[in-house]
Amino acid sequence: MSTDRTRWQIRAERSIEYDVLKTRDLFSPENEVMLSGGKRNGGRRFVVVDGAVWHYHGEMLRSYFVARGVDARIVVFPGAEEHKTIETFQDLLRELDAFPIHRHDEPIIAIGGGVLTDVVGFVAASYRRGLPYIKVPTTLMGYVDASLGIKVGINFNGNKNRIGAFAAPLVVLLDKTFLRTLPRRHLLNGVCEIIKLAIIRDVQLFERLEIDGPTSVANSFGSAAGDALLDRAITGMLDELAPNLYEGELTRRVDFGHTFSYGLEVSPRLDLLHGEAVLLDILVSISLARRRDMLTERDVGRVFALIGRLGIQPDLSLLDAGVMWASLLDRIEHRNGEQRVPMPVGLGRCVFLNDVTFQEIEVAIAALRARTDTSRERALER
Amino acid sequence: MSTDRTRWQIRAERSIEYDVLKTRDLFSPENEVMLSGGKRNGGRRFVVVDGAVWHYHGEMLRSYFVARGVDARIVVFPGAEEHKTIETFQDLLRELDAFPIHRHDEPIIAIGGGVLTDVVGFVAASYRRGLPYIKVPTTLMGYVDASLGIKVGINFNGNKNRIGAFAAPLVVLLDKTFLRTLPRRHLLNGVCEIIKLAIIRDVQLFERLEIDGPTSVANSFGSAAGDALLDRAITGMLDELAPNLYEGELTRRVDFGHTFSYGLEVSPRLDLLHGEAVLLDILVSISLARRRDMLTERDVGRVFALIGRLGIQPDLSLLDAGVMWASLLDRIEHRNGEQRVPMPVGLGRCVFLNDVTFQEIEVAIAALRARTDTSRERALER
Repeated sequence: MSTDRTRWQIRAERSIEYDVLKTRDLFSPENEVMLSGGKRNGGRRFVVVDGAVWHYHGEMLRSYFVARGVDARIVVFPGAEEHKTIETFQDLLRELDAFPIHRHDEPIIAIGGGVLTDVVGFVAASYRRGLPYIKVPTTLMGYVDASLGIKVGINFNGNKNRIGAFAAPLVVLLDKTFLRTLPRRHLLNGVCEIIKLAIIRDVQLFERLEIDGPTSVANSFGSAAGDALLDRAITGMLDELAPNLYEGELTRRVDFGHTFSYGLEVSPRLDLLHGEAVLLDILVSISLARRRDMLTERDVGRVFALIGRLGIQPDLSLLDAGVMWASLLDRIEHRNGEQRVPMPVGLGRCVFLNDVTFQEIEVAIAALRARTDTSRERALER
Repeated sequence: MSTDRTRWQIRAERSIEYDVLKTRDLFSPENEVMLSGGKRNGGRRFVVVDGAVWHYHGEMLRSYFVARGVDARIVVFPGAEEHKTIETFQDLLRELDAFPIHRHDEPIIAIGGGVLTDVVGFVAASYRRGLPYIKVPTTLMGYVDASLGIKVGINFNGNKNRIGAFAAPLVVLLDKTFLRTLPRRHLLNGVCEIIKLAIIRDVQLFERLEIDGPTSVANSFGSAAGDALLDRAITGMLDELAPNLYEGELTRRVDFGHTFSYGLEVSPRLDLLHGEAVLLDILVSISLARRRDMLTERDVGRVFALIGRLGIQPDLSLLDAGVMWASLLDRIEHRNGEQRVPMPVGLGRCVFLNDVTFQEIEVAIAALRARTDTSRERALER
């Protein structure tokens, strides 16, 4: 800081440091990683856990803290997009207020899917202007996407993730055990983000999905092949996120599938999971890219073949050009005045468009519906 | 980022850079500083302005944006501690949602006192996970204290500043013109923070207050002496804040006066301004320090003489040992398990206590009351 009596200049650097760490037997008392950032025995922890995880693993979780002599307040959270609200945010803040914890060495622990870690992360980011917190993703969506970066937040005023923070976790703990009890729909939800990454930046990941995807979904990524798939997806995602944690750069490849989908996703009527909305966006995008000759018919065919083989059945009747265009208009504010729509040019490569039109979205949707109608007819003829 | 298949390490640095800048004629169309961080003509700005400032300067403010061709949405905010709520926070977020602005180059502008810049700062910090914003303090409290750092937030669940963020402004603009229309009570409110700084770290500032304080209050710090006082106070405050912007270090000299006062301040019944609550805390603290022989009788006498000469009349009947002890207990969580109470050892120097007792607070309050009763009797006898 210097001063010449008309100006004081404040300059500082803040270091961000966290690990994404694979672990096993997270709730076994011998495993200390969940107590990172504070005393390994004793002290207090405020823990928020997803309802389904609590159902399957609650007793072990409670026993864990008892065994470590930690005074834990465990709050069970229902999860799901409809609870990503300012009301839930306030409920959790009040729970936290009733259970005083140290500001620096008693990290909050969030155990659940992307919605849960986003909401609890925002609680941690806001309470006393920021407490340390630990993320334990228990869904595939959390595992390969939501938990990896530093974005936290809630929906507000009908808009997805409208308020939130950039708040680095202390550590992200990945234990594949949780995937075993994850319903198939939620496994596929996470797979959609892997497909996104594959199409936009990594054709080899796409090939692995073609080969090992169906089995990995069937065995909850329990095999070595599933492990390799997840490692590649996580590495790719972090390669994109890490140099741009605070989104100083708004032209982002990982925004593929995240331009037209926002409006669809916040509609409770549609009951779409995040990945399901992202996939609808991806399909409209590749249909649009096909019409611009940025993808070949073979590329598009491979994408449809892949999602078919994975057993994903997107509901194209939900597509709505008006809603998708409105989402793009909001993204323009979010991306500081330009569309910056990531679009594949061949599988695994990406350009950014700034001239997408409403009509183009309409045509892309129509072409998409025609394609699937045709393939359904062909299937019936067979 | 590196990976060895069981661990990914994410490392990044974030730079904080902002200026606290003295300016004049802020609302004169020739002055461009309020348009920092974006286009100097055209574009949009979301502006929140204090009701009293709007009353005196509203027309000039509106004309300013018209003259610069800026599409401005100006929201008038009532200010005052009672509005530092999550309801106000949400109201402002909804207003902002209805007036789309670019994420990076259309900074939010907050013009008002400490409550206003704190609330609007939290809106800016949270909306889309953080938009740039500019602070224009219009009260002395804002000028020498609230606007200088990066702390923003709101009261919640009956607790002061319970949720918020560390969010650096783009720039802080200081225009003394606003102090001219500031009511005397609010001038003295800011003076209390200068007194705090003087007692805990800067005996020369204390001496200047003794000499130039009364005239400076009378002329709203309009003279060169008033300017010098403010410069020294701002420099001192920034010297404390700048190396510890994120409060990694919880042992902070600027917390003097901010340990016992929190409970008093959030009580709407008491109707205390922040500086008034801080002064009550200071008086209890110096009474306590006197009993520990950390201050001489002469030191304590100088503090009372100074506040008397400045025309500040603290209401000691508001002191409540129970409330002040409860505030300290909460501060222990905030300060990660220790009291860390800043306490003067002679005027201008500071130590930190970790062993303050409830009884000590009771005795300090009683001694304080006895002292002022005695001096009142003496005054009546004269």
